[in-house]
Amino acid sequence: MKKTTLLINCPDKKGIIATVTNFILAKKGNITYIDQYVDRELGEFFMRSECEFDNDEKKLIQFKEAFNAEIAKNYNMHWEMYDTEKKPKMALFVSKYDHCLYDILGRHASGELQVEIPIIISNHNDLKPIADAFSIPFKHIPVTKQNKIEAESEQLQALEECNIDFVVLARYMQILSSDFVDHFPNKIINIHHSFLPAFPGAKPYHSAYERGVKIIGATSHYVTSDLDEGPIIEQEVVRISHIHNVQDFILKGRDLEKIVLSRAIKHHIARKVLVYNNKTVIFS
Amino acid sequence: MKKTTLLINCPDKKGIIATVTNFILAKKGNITYIDQYVDRELGEFFMRSECEFDNDEKKLIQFKEAFNAEIAKNYNMHWEMYDTEKKPKMALFVSKYDHCLYDILGRHASGELQVEIPIIISNHNDLKPIADAFSIPFKHIPVTKQNKIEAESEQLQALEECNIDFVVLARYMQILSSDFVDHFPNKIINIHHSFLPAFPGAKPYHSAYERGVKIIGATSHYVTSDLDEGPIIEQEVVRISHIHNVQDFILKGRDLEKIVLSRAIKHHIARKVLVYNNKTVIFS
Amino acid sequence: MKKTTLLINCPDKKGIIATVTNFILAKKGNITYIDQYVDRELGEFFMRSECEFDNDEKKLIQFKEAFNAEIAKNYNMHWEMYDTEKKPKMALFVSKYDHCLYDILGRHASGELQVEIPIIISNHNDLKPIADAFSIPFKHIPVTKQNKIEAESEQLQALEECNIDFVVLARYMQILSSDFVDHFPNKIINIHHSFLPAFPGAKPYHSAYERGVKIIGATSHYVTSDLDEGPIIEQEVVRISHIHNVQDFILKGRDLEKIVLSRAIKHHIARKVLVYNNKTVIFS
Amino acid sequence: MKKTTLLINCPDKKGIIATVTNFILAKKGNITYIDQYVDRELGEFFMRSECEFDNDEKKLIQFKEAFNAEIAKNYNMHWEMYDTEKKPKMALFVSKYDHCLYDILGRHASGELQVEIPIIISNHNDLKPIADAFSIPFKHIPVTKQNKIEAESEQLQALEECNIDFVVLARYMQILSSDFVDHFPNKIINIHHSFLPAFPGAKPYHSAYERGVKIIGATSHYVTSDLDEGPIIEQEVVRISHIHNVQDFILKGRDLEKIVLSRAIKHHIARKVLVYNNKTVIFS
Repeated sequence: MKKTTLLINCPDKKGIIATVTNFILAKKGNITYIDQYVDRELGEFFMRSECEFDNDEKKLIQFKEAFNAEIAKNYNMHWEMYDTEKKPKMALFVSKYDHCLYDILGRHASGELQVEIPIIISNHNDLKPIADAFSIPFKHIPVTKQNKIEAESEQLQALEECNIDFVVLARYMQILSSDFVDHFPNKIINIHHSFLPAFPGAKPYHSAYERGVKIIGATSHYVTSDLDEGPIIEQEVVRISHIHNVQDFILKGRDLEKIVLSRAIKHHIARKVLVYNNKTVIFS
Repeated sequence: MKKTTLLINCPDKKGIIATVTNFILAKKGNITYIDQYVDRELGEFFMRSECEFDNDEKKLIQFKEAFNAEIAKNYNMHWEMYDTEKKPKMALFVSKYDHCLYDILGRHASGELQVEIPIIISNHNDLKPIADAFSIPFKHIPVTKQNKIEAESEQLQALEECNIDFVVLARYMQILSSDFVDHFPNKIINIHHSFLPAFPGAKPYHSAYERGVKIIGATSHYVTSDLDEGPIIEQEVVRISHIHNVQDFILKGRDLEKIVLSRAIKHHIARKVLVYNNKTVIFS
Repeated sequence: MKKTTLLINCPDKKGIIATVTNFILAKKGNITYIDQYVDRELGEFFMRSECEFDNDEKKLIQFKEAFNAEIAKNYNMHWEMYDTEKKPKMALFVSKYDHCLYDILGRHASGELQVEIPIIISNHNDLKPIADAFSIPFKHIPVTKQNKIEAESEQLQALEECNIDFVVLARYMQILSSDFVDHFPNKIINIHHSFLPAFPGAKPYHSAYERGVKIIGATSHYVTSDLDEGPIIEQEVVRISHIHNVQDFILKGRDLEKIVLSRAIKHHIARKVLVYNNKTVIFS
Repeated sequence: MKKTTLLINCPDKKGIIATVTNFILAKKGNITYIDQYVDRELGEFFMRSECEFDNDEKKLIQFKEAFNAEIAKNYNMHWEMYDTEKKPKMALFVSKYDHCLYDILGRHASGELQVEIPIIISNHNDLKPIADAFSIPFKHIPVTKQNKIEAESEQLQALEECNIDFVVLARYMQILSSDFVDHFPNKIINIHHSFLPAFPGAKPYHSAYERGVKIIGATSHYVTSDLDEGPIIEQEVVRISHIHNVQDFILKGRDLEKIVLSRAIKHHIARKVLVYNNKTVIFS
């Protein structure tokens, strides 16, 4: 059997669920999971479904064509269908901080992340030994104010050569240009070390310390051209107190960053995320 | 329009979702929400759906009859359909602790709980002034070793007279007999002041203190004839440290008890709970 | 024995702890608890101590005079000494939301808050029945744009007549003037329904919904003349997801508001809070 | 300056704090931090202090001798004084699970753990490549029912050769003998994959799944001769729901195990843990 994951969103209408489930049944598909959500305010319907079909590539293509013609067009759907068992290809962007990199590579080596990692790209050479230890190709592309356009062009070429599906900024300390971001819409995952929208931009732990908050957080989001304003995928927090200084915040925050980023990556890999109106629907 | 909530569980089979959604559509019902879950290990299918129908009592009865005959029997379903907007009737059992009672009555008065409270029953008279302040009838039924059977009989009669749908033990300090419990299967909600299965039975805060745990909890569950062994509806925890003594545990625990119990009540009222195999499915 | 609570802050210096503990010992005081903290960045020393003395009012006055002359002046201390067992007097300000009021009065009635509540002041009459049910005096002082100065003057007079020690804004929907705030520096506790500094000002739940955050929070802080910018006492958060709408945020937020506000009140009552540099030191 | 950490516990008495702080001051020590706690029930006093002295090894020895003679004996103290900046030596015991090993080695490589790791000991060879990647010596000592005594003897010898201060069982799947444990009292840290005392022993995730809990946990504790009964150092929990199966528990649990174990290790390294009466005092 071929396992597939079907993601749909469209304007809400009476009967969508029955129509879609019927269609799949009629085409000899077996729905093993369905989750659905309607944003009443926006009148938008969202659905994630896991379906099994006979393992026949030709028939699956026919199914998709028929689904598009008979269902998707009528309902004005945005839809995608994935081969559930095909691992997506993820590129990692890093700079000098190593904790997220260690965490992701450790999880990957443990078999926790169903993903391929064909490349790590960095604007510094510092973390190359880690990439080497985990036998992942490491590409050093220095970035300066002067060479930014060329550097991004080189990055994009490297991603293309590896057929990268999505990019993870694992504490990558450069801001990507709008042009770069446009190549991977809702496919670049960033980790920001604050509970957004509090403390966007640089040095959020310092700002949190200054303000005297009692809880700090981390936020993983898709990158858009507005800095730290993209759709939030996951957040987590940890309690701190007056005894903790900025350095303590940074150390405690590392654990948040690792956990939040890895959860976001898992959601993305499992195709559980739908983006709409700069927000995310995360199916369970 | 008449809003209804449909709960189903049955052995898992191919095509259930399509069949049910189709049937509702064919009968002019509008599905506004659907959530579904399959326990792969047990091969059991669970579904919760919210559907709107024309506000015609006769047609709704016909729908139910047809659903039973044409769908439920084929799939060997256990199913229930509720009038979403009809408030269930809840009885409160209390003894001397007042914090859960204050919390529930405060929430009810604030309009947070879509429920009627026709009666508070207690084996002590201490909390009557609170019932009075909130204008809820209070019935004092003393319970002793000697009169337990008669007392429970009197309780059952009072519940029957009020057409009670479910019972909440808001720190009621008596153990109900199996006979009593059998009258309300999966309809008696208890709050136990520990993170079950740790520390069942009496004085859990004392036991937690003795053991030196770093986190304490509270658990809300349906009452079965096995003490503290019923299906868990909700749990919550709070961090404590060596500086806290048993009295601190009790005070911190109160907040847990209130929150966990009120969440469980809300799930139950919204018919979001399905019990199976001594566990709960809690739809979102 | 007379139990006292001693709060100190001063520029950090070698030997403060030894000096203070020695002095107390020499004066026949028994230190039963000491907690201390140094803000290295600011070079400021903070200490909270619980000490028992003979129950002799005259000697205690002598102790205070001697402490001031022999210790406090040398170290340039800001210090306060409280009778631990004397309940402070707390005024509640409310408007129309009742959940925090129910919660505080329920806790007070349960004996959880070691405080006197001589008065509830409101700009609306809606919550008077709750005050009545708990037998707390309720004063209705309407506030409009036109009468704001007179209204605050009337409020201040009422507080003075009751010898109020501190004020709790339990979802009071008016902004207090700087002049009013100056009468109670670090003695007015507010509950804001967001995880500050995210979403200050009006309608934070709506803003949180718009932004698509995955966690919402509540913040209790001392009121200063800068709206929602005062020293944070306590914060708490709860996880939400895409399925929750603004109304769900509001309901879930209520529990946060109640818990965060009651924790802040408890810290304040127990004299565990020291304010410095617009931040709080919360002793445990 | 020489930084030291002083840990004390003794029967509680009037004046201990003043006496100790005075003594240190008189010996030209500077107390930079003090935290103290009294267990009222047991009448036991606990203190952790950080003090700076002139960097003169001879004087420090004299200080310790004087402290012992003049203070410790009078108060019947158990006390220890550490060179704060000297890194302790930690041995890791592992079997086949790699997630805790990756996590600890990653943190160590990032500079997060102020510890030396002279050796990793395992009853299997599977994780040797990880040790190699991080350049840590790896010793394979197979353990069977038959050779257990010899194997433990070999382990103990290896630990002695490396001058190991404490041992961390990073999901080591063998039960240590009482004899082994006696060599390292309160110096063997284990991670158990449940919220103890719930689900001790084997397969706790399976048991948690069977029971239908809504929250799972992990517990780090010192190993004693009673399995999973030693003093708890740290616990953490994560929310799960009916949709998660045992495999999901295991995956979510991994993150708990890593975080709880690393926190326990950090507390131990910083000498913030005092064990008394099978419980821990964890200074902040």
